[in-house]
This record gives sequence, structure tokens and C-alpha cells, in this order.
Amino acid sequence: MASIYDQDLEQNQANYQPLTPLTFLERAATVFPERIAIVYGGLEITYAEFYRRCRQLASALTARGIGRGDTVSAMLANTPPMLEAHYAVPMCGAVLHALNTRLDAGVIAFQLDHAESKLLITDTGFSSTIAAALETTQVTPLLIDYADPVLAAENRQTGERLGTEDYEELVSGGDAEFAWLMPNNEWDAISVNYTSGTTGDPKGVVYHHRGACLLAQGNAITASIPKHAVYLWTLPMFHCNGWCFPWTLSAVSGTHVCLREVRADAIWRALDQHQVTHLCGAPVVMSTILNAEPEVKRPLQRQVDFFTAAAPPPERVLADMREAGFNVTHLYGLTEVYGPAVVNDWNSEWETLPAQQQASLKARQGVRYHALEELDVLDPETLEPVPRDGETLGEVMFRGNVVMKGYLKNRAATDEAFKGGWFHSGDLGVVYPDGYIQLKDRSKDIIISGGENISSIEVEEVLHKHPQIVAAAVVAMPDNKWGETPCAFVELAQGSDVSIEDLTAWCKEHLAGFKVPRRYVIGAIAKTSTGKVQKFLLRQQAARLATAAD
Amino acid sequence: MASIYDQDLEQNQANYQPLTPLTFLERAATVFPERIAIVYGGLEITYAEFYRRCRQLASALTARGIGRGDTVSAMLANTPPMLEAHYAVPMCGAVLHALNTRLDAGVIAFQLDHAESKLLITDTGFSSTIAAALETTQVTPLLIDYADPVLAAENRQTGERLGTEDYEELVSGGDAEFAWLMPNNEWDAISVNYTSGTTGDPKGVVYHHRGACLLAQGNAITASIPKHAVYLWTLPMFHCNGWCFPWTLSAVSGTHVCLREVRADAIWRALDQHQVTHLCGAPVVMSTILNAEPEVKRPLQRQVDFFTAAAPPPERVLADMREAGFNVTHLYGLTEVYGPAVVNDWNSEWETLPAQQQASLKARQGVRYHALEELDVLDPETLEPVPRDGETLGEVMFRGNVVMKGYLKNRAATDEAFKGGWFHSGDLGVVYPDGYIQLKDRSKDIIISGGENISSIEVEEVLHKHPQIVAAAVVAMPDNKWGETPCAFVELAQGSDVSIEDLTAWCKEHLAGFKVPRRYVIGAIAKTSTGKVQKFLLRQQAARLATAAD
Repeated sequence: MASIYDQDLEQNQANYQPLTPLTFLERAATVFPERIAIVYGGLEITYAEFYRRCRQLASALTARGIGRGDTVSAMLANTPPMLEAHYAVPMCGAVLHALNTRLDAGVIAFQLDHAESKLLITDTGFSSTIAAALETTQVTPLLIDYADPVLAAENRQTGERLGTEDYEELVSGGDAEFAWLMPNNEWDAISVNYTSGTTGDPKGVVYHHRGACLLAQGNAITASIPKHAVYLWTLPMFHCNGWCFPWTLSAVSGTHVCLREVRADAIWRALDQHQVTHLCGAPVVMSTILNAEPEVKRPLQRQVDFFTAAAPPPERVLADMREAGFNVTHLYGLTEVYGPAVVNDWNSEWETLPAQQQASLKARQGVRYHALEELDVLDPETLEPVPRDGETLGEVMFRGNVVMKGYLKNRAATDEAFKGGWFHSGDLGVVYPDGYIQLKDRSKDIIISGGENISSIEVEEVLHKHPQIVAAAVVAMPDNKWGETPCAFVELAQGSDVSIEDLTAWCKEHLAGFKVPRRYVIGAIAKTSTGKVQKFLLRQQAARLATAAD
Repeated sequence: MASIYDQDLEQNQANYQPLTPLTFLERAATVFPERIAIVYGGLEITYAEFYRRCRQLASALTARGIGRGDTVSAMLANTPPMLEAHYAVPMCGAVLHALNTRLDAGVIAFQLDHAESKLLITDTGFSSTIAAALETTQVTPLLIDYADPVLAAENRQTGERLGTEDYEELVSGGDAEFAWLMPNNEWDAISVNYTSGTTGDPKGVVYHHRGACLLAQGNAITASIPKHAVYLWTLPMFHCNGWCFPWTLSAVSGTHVCLREVRADAIWRALDQHQVTHLCGAPVVMSTILNAEPEVKRPLQRQVDFFTAAAPPPERVLADMREAGFNVTHLYGLTEVYGPAVVNDWNSEWETLPAQQQASLKARQGVRYHALEELDVLDPETLEPVPRDGETLGEVMFRGNVVMKGYLKNRAATDEAFKGGWFHSGDLGVVYPDGYIQLKDRSKDIIISGGENISSIEVEEVLHKHPQIVAAAVVAMPDNKWGETPCAFVELAQGSDVSIEDLTAWCKEHLAGFKVPRRYVIGAIAKTSTGKVQKFLLRQQAARLATAAD
């Protein structure tokens, strides 16, 4: 028998609306129209203007045929158009596909085709890569060029224009009163972000409005980000939509400080000039900040919150960051969970422990965000939780509203990832008695270099194609600056006379620069009796090489 | 044609979970088990213990037959069991029905019957009212007595026990490892709160898990409530589930400081002893704080955030509160929108304006919470927005995820309230050019006294039953302490010799004390030519009487 609470109490327009982060911007523009939403170079954009420009852009995109379920790609640095794209593209019902600007033309071409891109907003600074990519694509997206005025102001060279329309002209031709579209359903896609994954082809991770809304708010609650926070963009927005911070900032009516490049002088100037309160980035950003020339460093007028992910912050860096005035919080996530969904939620009692112990506590990945309903380390076969002993290895798994919709046009990979009703991260870890998790190894063979994922398999495939290589295995080598770099183990054909320089040149030709191995070990590769490469032995060897090189 | 984003990207257990505030507590207990969740009298309850007790209570309730869709009522003051009920009752799938402890037995009996209450947790301090109510109910809920140890410690009298089970025994008999129930659907009811409404019978406003989760987070974001905030309970939890703060505090792993009664000495002691950071209450709570004897006041060691609703805070009170160290934020809402859904979001630029102007800006009800998708003032006939001129009157309407499911077992009232896809508040207001709304009048004839709603119609009905009264109209009279009190205009039968004392006695017999008119005006009541009472004239007259009395 149905309960009395299930009778005559249906959803209707008055009591049910799709969750979306788009309404955050409308609210911020209404309530704080004159407040600065975006700072970039000498430019200051108020919330009223930001919202107006987004509506104009959405209207212009709509006029060019972009509608519900279409893909709009963006090859943009951390500049205002990237923030505008995060609102304007979904405002016409379309899906934002932010391209990693460091990728090579081949991967970009693959993504544009796979996502069936209809329109591409591209910064002229990346024209050469895009031009090369478009030579091979099946799709022919409408091209909109963004000529960054900051580059011009600094008299720096930019690439040629590829399209027929200029971004600023496109925006200014749009309707500032455009009646933008709410999603039909909160499950509608808002963006697609490609991951390098384990196998050759990148996978398109699809986010929905519901998850973006919840993680955007989750950032604010988890990190206690108050009204009018000032956020510095050192994390690329093409990474998991900047961990949803483009939307979080509107929720708190805060200010985005954009930086085209992560340079020490620009970071320190921005921290000082704009009274930055929060920033995010890979550990390499912390090194950049700390290793800045003394003359560019400035005393901070308040504590700045720094959120880092990709690798645990080392003790030395933590101490130096604290001394420089930063409070570092360690986050963890994957593209499949909208960026960070796990936080090393700091316990104030730990403050009294010795620095080394604090660092090992901070090295743990931590506990779930609110917006992630379940986080656990499970036996990948039985899906039983591992004992909370800090020792038993299992696979880190996620369940909740900030887990992706799935992989675009890839039923098999989606089903595999969601097997048994959990998202399988592929990361191996342990759970401590206090419930905090720590990663111990990666089953996915991903190398994280400067916050960028590198698929070891992709690099191996390039090496395998070299005519004189008979076997290759690539693993992560610890690196003081980048966290990790690829280290290649290769077996050469008998009588081969190929040099390290030759191998480097070969890789550079076929891979984006950051994926090129920094070290080669030539000789027999350690394998099991059944011929399986023993990657853990190679990792140990790479670690020894790294230490020896120090 | 379906978009590529709608193919093979379905919801499953891994990527979709019902929104609920219950998971907040599980997380707080895991991450901060030793942190103090609740302070009451000499009692301190950690998060681990709070969660354990909630699971025990949920298990005990389940063992007594409480399950999905059942109603569990609570007649409790702001004591730990009331917080526990906010988690434990929905943890067994049931619906929490918190009774306003100030109501009379008749109204309580009506609510217990209407909600089909299966179990009632009742503080022995309210036994006489409950005993009287149960004499007339159709339902026979299982009774659980809570004997407040603070009353005993203070050697204060409590009423007799009505049931066969003691609350603490019930809890301690429960299973601390109980596998509590997530809602089947986020649309499932979590609580029912009765409003006095305009017509005779109270209406049962049904809240769902989705809305409770979103408003609980909305409080934290809207008010920038940080991790580990300390919240003082001066707002009754039976009001709209304490504006969802019982759930907000778990989201930020904060501390609840419970107070049985809103007394100046207890408030000041708690503010000081527990380093309170936030509290909520009707304007009468501010008066209580400010008018405290000098010897109980203490200097605040930090700014305390005070959230007030029900009536705009007067200029004098704002100035005094600021001087005493409080930052006052004005909220607005109704039972139907989970308590506050509108905030006078303060613009820092206004700080430089003269005090009087600041007070008039602060008197405005404001703008929507994020969790409320739309707020507007519409023509109630056409549903067209009124001009943003600060003058044109319309009806305040709401649309969004923190609007109730509807009225329990009252299809007609629900349909009426949601006419045209908006929730019709019944409040009349204007919109200023900056988008902030301000209430100007109430179409619902509600009097708000000390934060409690009084239906003028209910009081009129009582008066009409008096044998010597031929006509009666009740309106709000401004009151320095209570905000408003009921003022009755009555026409007596010819030759009647009834006195004001007789009328007061009559009302006291039939109404809860706070609903009894504080003032009577005997004589002809102003009516229109068609015989309709001209309430606005009566309100003006009552206002004059109030001023004259000052």
C-alpha cells in the first residue's frame, strides 16, 4: 500500500527544477552586478558584463545552429573566453569539449572527430596545432578565432587566424537578453573531457548538469570557500573543467584571476595585486611558486589556500609553503569524478604532531567530498571492502552523484568501469583505521607529469612502431620538478645501431613534448615466466636511476 | 534524433544516488569522530556518539514496526533527542513530524490524527498537553517519554510519564551497527511540518530528502558557514526543521549548542563558553539578547553571525546588535520553502551609507538562495512579473527544489498553491530595480508574534463562537518585543455586558497563550459597501494604538 506521502504530491514546475550550475551566474549577476567577476591582464569584467557576454555568446552560437546535444570544442588557455564557454555553451543546450592545449595534433583530431565537434573556439596562439589537426579530421567544425589581447599587448607573436569569425565580433553580435536554455533534465550532458586512459584511444568522459552543480557547491563547502573569494587560475580549465571551479566561483560571487601561463612572476604579482584567497594546481605549481626569484616574491597579506592533487605534497614543500603563507590541502580524483572528489580533510588535532608525521598524514588522499556518496577500497573481484588496516591493497572505487555519466560512444568501456555498481578507478590503495584512504599504486599505468596524465601504453605504442625496437615498456620515474616523467625500457633488434638521440627524435615526432621519455634504458626487459612485463621491477629501477641522478 | 550524449549513458548505482542530508552525518562521524557534535547542559556528544545513537534509535524504531512512509511525531524542546530524531526517523524510512510545543492540545490532536502518527517521542515537560491531546485523537501512537536530565539537574518539575518506554532505554537497546535505509528516491518525504495557514485546519507541509539536502547545503553557502562552525539553538527546531540547520551542521562538521529555553542568561553564557559563531532567531531573540541584565552580558571574542527572519530588523536593533558584536543577516521564507529561501545578501558597498539607509536596505527581504531556482513578484492573475520599480504590488512566488512536495492529503490546497507552476506565497511585495524584493502586506492574514505564525482566522473563529459576539476581525498590531501581537476588533450583541477580561478568559480557554489578542477594540468594524471587512483600515488603526501606547 502506498504511503500517504506518495499520494497527490507529484513533481511540478513549482517544486522541481533541474539542478545546474548555470543559475549560479544568473544569481551572481543579479545580486552583485558591479562586482568584478574576471580579472585578466588589464581587463576587469563585472558580473553583469560576464553574464551579458555569456548570453550574447549563447545567442550567437544558437544563431549558428548550435543546439541541444551538440558539441562545441574549445582550444583555449585560462582566459576569459574559457570561462564564458563554461556557461554559454550549456546555455544553448550544447556540450563543452575543452581541449588540452598541450596535446599533439593527432590526439586533438581524434577528439574532434569522436565528439563530432560542430564548432571550435580556438586561441590563435594554438593555430599551428589546430591547423595540423584539421587536416586529418572527418568533421569540419565552424572555426571561431580568439586573438588574445594580452599577447598583443605584450608584443608576443600569435598564430594565424584559421576561421572566418572573430570571437569578440561573435560575442558582440549576440543578443544580451537571450533567453538561454535550462537543461531539459539535470542528467543532460554539460561537458565532455577526454582522458588518456590505458588503451590507445582517449575516452570521452561525459559530465551532467546535476554533477557539475553538486561538485561546484561541494568545492565551496569542502574547502570553506566564502562569499567573494578571489581565485587564481593556475590549474588549467581544460582539466576536468578546472575541477568545476569555473562554476564554484559564481556560487560564491567570487573573482576569477586568469593567467595565460603558469609563471612565477605572474603568480606572485597576482597574489599580491588581487588579494588572492584560493588557488589550485599540481605540485609543480608549488615548486614554481617556491623556486621563484627572490625579487618576484612578495609577502602575503593573508593566508592563501592552495589545493593540490595528482601527487602527495612532499614534507619539504609543505613546510616551505606554510612558511610562505599558504595552507595546502591535498585533494584526489580522476577525470571520471569531475576532478577532485576526495579530500585530505585536515584534523586540527594533527597540528601538534611532528612535521614529518604531519606530512605523512597529509600524503594520504583522504575521505569523500559530500557530493560523492561513497568512497571505498574494495577487492576488485568480490567487491568486498578491504580491512581498515592501512596495509591490505584493494582498488579505489567511487559511487555517487559526481561520478560521470559514462564514456561517450563507448558502451563496453562504460560497462566495464561501472561493473558491480561502483566506478572502478584503477588506482590501488589502502584504508587506514580512521577511514582515510591512501593510493599505493596504479593499475592503469598512468604517468602523471606536471599534473598531466600520460598513458604509458600510448608511449609504448610509439616506441613499438620504431623499426629497430623489438620490445618497449614505459613507467613513471620520480622527478623533483614534474612529479613523474616517462622512463622507457627498450629491447633493440640484433645488430641495431640506434642511439638515444634517435629514439628521442622519433618520440618527439609522434608524441606531444611532455610525453617524450626523459630517460631510456636499453637492454633486456624484466618479464615473468609467462612473458608478462614486470612493471613493478621497472618502476623500482627507474626510481633508483632517479635517485642516482640527484 | 537522440543526441550522442543520450545514448548508452544511463543512470546506475555507481553514478546516481538519491540526494539526502543523512549521508552528511555518516561522513562527519567518519572524518571527525572525536569532534563535539552536541553540547547540552553538562553533556558533550561526539560525532561518533551522535551517529551511533542515531543508528541505535533508528534500529529501535524499526524494531517497533516503524518503516518507510510512517509518521513519527516529536514533542521536544531544542534538546539532543530532537537532533537525533532528525536523522534516526528518516534513517528507518519514516517521516519526522515535529510538533510546535507551544500549541494547544486541540491542534496537536488534529495534527497527530491527520499525519496518522504511529509513534510519539514526547518530553515529559509537555506531558499535560500531550495527555490532553491523546484523549481526543483517533490514532494511538506508541509513546516514548524523554525525561530531560537538565530539568532534573536543575531540580525543576517535569510532568508524568505517559508511555511505557523511556527514550534513553529505547536508544540504548538499539543496534549501533544498524544498516540504516537510504531513501528509495530523493523525492521521498523526510518530514512534515504543519502550518497554521489561513483556514481553520493546519496544513501538513511535506519536505523531501532532495530539498532538505539542498537547503542544508544552501545555508552553508549562502551564509559562508565554515568547517567546524559552532551553532547556538535559539530557533525552535520544530520550525521548518530548524530551517534545516540540524542537517547543515553535519555538512560542516560543526557543533550544536542546545538550549531548552531562550533565556538571556543562558544565551550569553553559551556564546561565551562555547565560542558560538552562528545563531538564528526571530527578532524577539535579538531583543532578549540586547535587553539582558548587564551582569549576564559578556564581551564577544569574535563577530557572531545572527540570522533573523519573520520581520525586518529595526534600525535601533541593528545598531545595538552591531555594537554588541553581532552581524545580522535578514532572511525570509515560509514553511512551504523549508524555512529561509530568500536572503538579504549584503553588498559591502552599502557599509558606507548612513545607518538609516542601511537599515532600510536591510529591511528588504532580498534575493533567492541558490537552492531556490526562481523568486519573483508576479501579478497573481496573469503571472506576469511586476515592474521592478519598488512600488508595484504583486504576489511573492517561488519555484525550485526547496519548495515543498505539497500539502499532505490535501490535493485541493496543493493544486491551489502551485497554480500556474509557481508556489503562491500569499505574501504581497514589490521588486526594486536591483532585484531585491520587499514584503508590503500579507494576503494570508497571518500574524507573526515572536516568530510564531498566528492565523487571524483561527482567532476570529474562537471569538465568533462567543455567544455575545456578532462580528470579529483580528489583525496584527506592531509590538516592540514580539514584532506583532493579535489585535481584535469585535462587535457585541445589543445589550451585551461582556468585559475585556471576559473576552481574554474566553480566548485563553480556546487558544494557545501566544494567540490570545493583547488588545480589543469594541465597536462597529469598518466594512466595504459589500460587507467585506476592510482589514487594511483595521491594521492602520491597530498601528496607531500601538504607537499611542508607546
